[in-house]
Amino acid sequence: MMSNIPKIVILGAGYAGILTAQRLQKELNYNEADVTLVNRHDYHYITTHLHMPAAGTDSVENTRVPISKLIDEFKIDLVKSSVQEIRPHEKKVILEDGTLSYDYLVISLGGESETFGIPGLADYAMTIRSINSVRLIRKHIEYQFALYKNERHPQERLNFVVGGAGFSGIEFVAELADRIPALCKEYDVDPSKVNIYNVEASPTALPGFAPELVEYAMDVLKRKGVTFKLGVAIQECTPDGVLLATGEEIKAATVVWTGGIRGNHMIEAAGFETARGRVKVDEYLHAPGHDNIYIIGDNALVFNPEGRPYPPTAQIAMQQGVCCAHNIVAAIRNQQPRKFAFQNKGTVASLGKGEGIAIVGDKQYKGWKAAQLKKLVDMRYLFIIGGIPLVLRKGKFL
Amino acid sequence: MMSNIPKIVILGAGYAGILTAQRLQKELNYNEADVTLVNRHDYHYITTHLHMPAAGTDSVENTRVPISKLIDEFKIDLVKSSVQEIRPHEKKVILEDGTLSYDYLVISLGGESETFGIPGLADYAMTIRSINSVRLIRKHIEYQFALYKNERHPQERLNFVVGGAGFSGIEFVAELADRIPALCKEYDVDPSKVNIYNVEASPTALPGFAPELVEYAMDVLKRKGVTFKLGVAIQECTPDGVLLATGEEIKAATVVWTGGIRGNHMIEAAGFETARGRVKVDEYLHAPGHDNIYIIGDNALVFNPEGRPYPPTAQIAMQQGVCCAHNIVAAIRNQQPRKFAFQNKGTVASLGKGEGIAIVGDKQYKGWKAAQLKKLVDMRYLFIIGGIPLVLRKGKFL
Repeated sequence: MMSNIPKIVILGAGYAGILTAQRLQKELNYNEADVTLVNRHDYHYITTHLHMPAAGTDSVENTRVPISKLIDEFKIDLVKSSVQEIRPHEKKVILEDGTLSYDYLVISLGGESETFGIPGLADYAMTIRSINSVRLIRKHIEYQFALYKNERHPQERLNFVVGGAGFSGIEFVAELADRIPALCKEYDVDPSKVNIYNVEASPTALPGFAPELVEYAMDVLKRKGVTFKLGVAIQECTPDGVLLATGEEIKAATVVWTGGIRGNHMIEAAGFETARGRVKVDEYLHAPGHDNIYIIGDNALVFNPEGRPYPPTAQIAMQQGVCCAHNIVAAIRNQQPRKFAFQNKGTVASLGKGEGIAIVGDKQYKGWKAAQLKKLVDMRYLFIIGGIPLVLRKGKFL
Repeated sequence: MMSNIPKIVILGAGYAGILTAQRLQKELNYNEADVTLVNRHDYHYITTHLHMPAAGTDSVENTRVPISKLIDEFKIDLVKSSVQEIRPHEKKVILEDGTLSYDYLVISLGGESETFGIPGLADYAMTIRSINSVRLIRKHIEYQFALYKNERHPQERLNFVVGGAGFSGIEFVAELADRIPALCKEYDVDPSKVNIYNVEASPTALPGFAPELVEYAMDVLKRKGVTFKLGVAIQECTPDGVLLATGEEIKAATVVWTGGIRGNHMIEAAGFETARGRVKVDEYLHAPGHDNIYIIGDNALVFNPEGRPYPPTAQIAMQQGVCCAHNIVAAIRNQQPRKFAFQNKGTVASLGKGEGIAIVGDKQYKGWKAAQLKKLVDMRYLFIIGGIPLVLRKGKFL
């Protein structure tokens, strides 16, 4: 059916993209616009849960949802493909197996791992960034235990280095520490032979949390067997492990890098002005100079009232998705768009089974209460995107 | 307690060693002899079941039993250590962490993989020979699926080469073929991309089975997706796969070698005369010229009435264990030893879920009946070594 109703294309079905799609589906009237959601996989995954399947403390299936369960395919076209190039001046997106034209474009592609130019990281370190990458981490870890028992017990197989003590790094080492006893039992390995190192260039872990919560978190993790190396940069990652700025070498067959997120390389390639690959969007989430292009999620640079950029989180991505959908509908209807304003609902970091830290408003929580809050946040997300049925189906891991 | 009661040392707690130990425990009177069982691990494993955990169709835990559940540690000393050297003329065995003297020695160490001098096999192929080695195979296979999804879909990750179409090779490819659909589902891989090659230098598979059973087995496996290359020798194994004598190369990140068993290298190193590492024992299972040394299991060469050597199987190893224990007790009591005579109780090969072939006496079975016979054989073994409790504990996989 040919029509001149506006075409909306959404690139990426992460937090930002899926929220945009769901809100558009709800707010648009019949035949008011064509909406196409492009995603590399036919599933959406819960990025904030990836540290668990990566360590093997939960399954991949509890971490993803078929997109077809989240959107109404009678209202939104789902294209499973990989974006190759964005051409803003032609209003086109090049996919690996086709081309899409748009009137409105939502770039919610997700970011990429930021390696800060540290040599070897891109080649020898794994990252917690997708279902495929965490399956690799999990299998790689198990494989090291199996290899250890078939070789002359080389220590590097049982040394695990996690680069970065931010949110992802801390949540992953906590799960890994929780998994080690089971792995040691399964492979008949003496647990005292296993070492988990968390290396961080900044002098403290978990930026954004109050010092007493950070201290609590580190105490929990040290008790679980994690060795911290804070204020020490990784100078190079090699096939044998990592070289630290102090000159120390940690031999390790497993290096997981969680050091940061930068914008997707396709953003810069498309000609947008970027800082670390991210675009400073306007107050309505438009790419500068392109009122028909919205950039949201990991690729958007939004500043807080003090002029510092918000870190890329699931929370801000979801709020941007809602705002973006609202503004596209407004544009189609020639109504006023809404300014994006981030509402901080709090931050929770999991520290493994039954442990966590949290800030909600001016309240701080730690231990069991924080762990419960984490579950609440996860369940709330499942409820937002999939209602009660999804909470019941995936919520069992909580 | 110093004593001059005879010291019996048993090296290896496989089928032959565990049966010897159990029979000695039963037949010896109190303080009639000191029995020490040396084993590298504190568990006994069911070698005929290893193809299942190797493919991942059953767990390692269903394939092993703690030795402490099989012997009475008040009657038999269990030493967990690795044998380094046998010194027949000093009546000593050197362990990795000590030395044992003996009056009677039972060498039931188990064999080693026979690579027939094919270059690269020892370095790049895995073998189904122990709990540790099958854990490695399982994890290696899963890791290939995980890698496949994180690289640019290299075909060699999904090509699996099994060298040898004897008993172990056939039973393993059957399980692997059964496992592939689940792996493809777990890793989102198109099953049509996976190839299983079974390469065998002999013109036929499964030597010892009647041609119609072999044909049946091959039909079953072809339907499960196995590609046979019979009458084709592997010329070389490389990090990239295998080179065949035909000049063909199969690129494969996974090569499992099941081509044969030879005697343990320590036998030859001890000064015994060997053929392919195995010792032609006398009719009482003595090493030639050493009436106090018994060699049983994979390292013993015993000939059938037609003058051909029996292949090393669990069945013959168990019967040798019983005969060996009897003859040691007889020697201690200055009674007549018994000649070893193999009683063939039949042969069953599993072909994966619900499929198999079997010969019992002059009767042949295939399909479901043979699969049931396989279960019966496995259960009978559990019953022999551990009685009803072990059948109930481990028999659940049957």
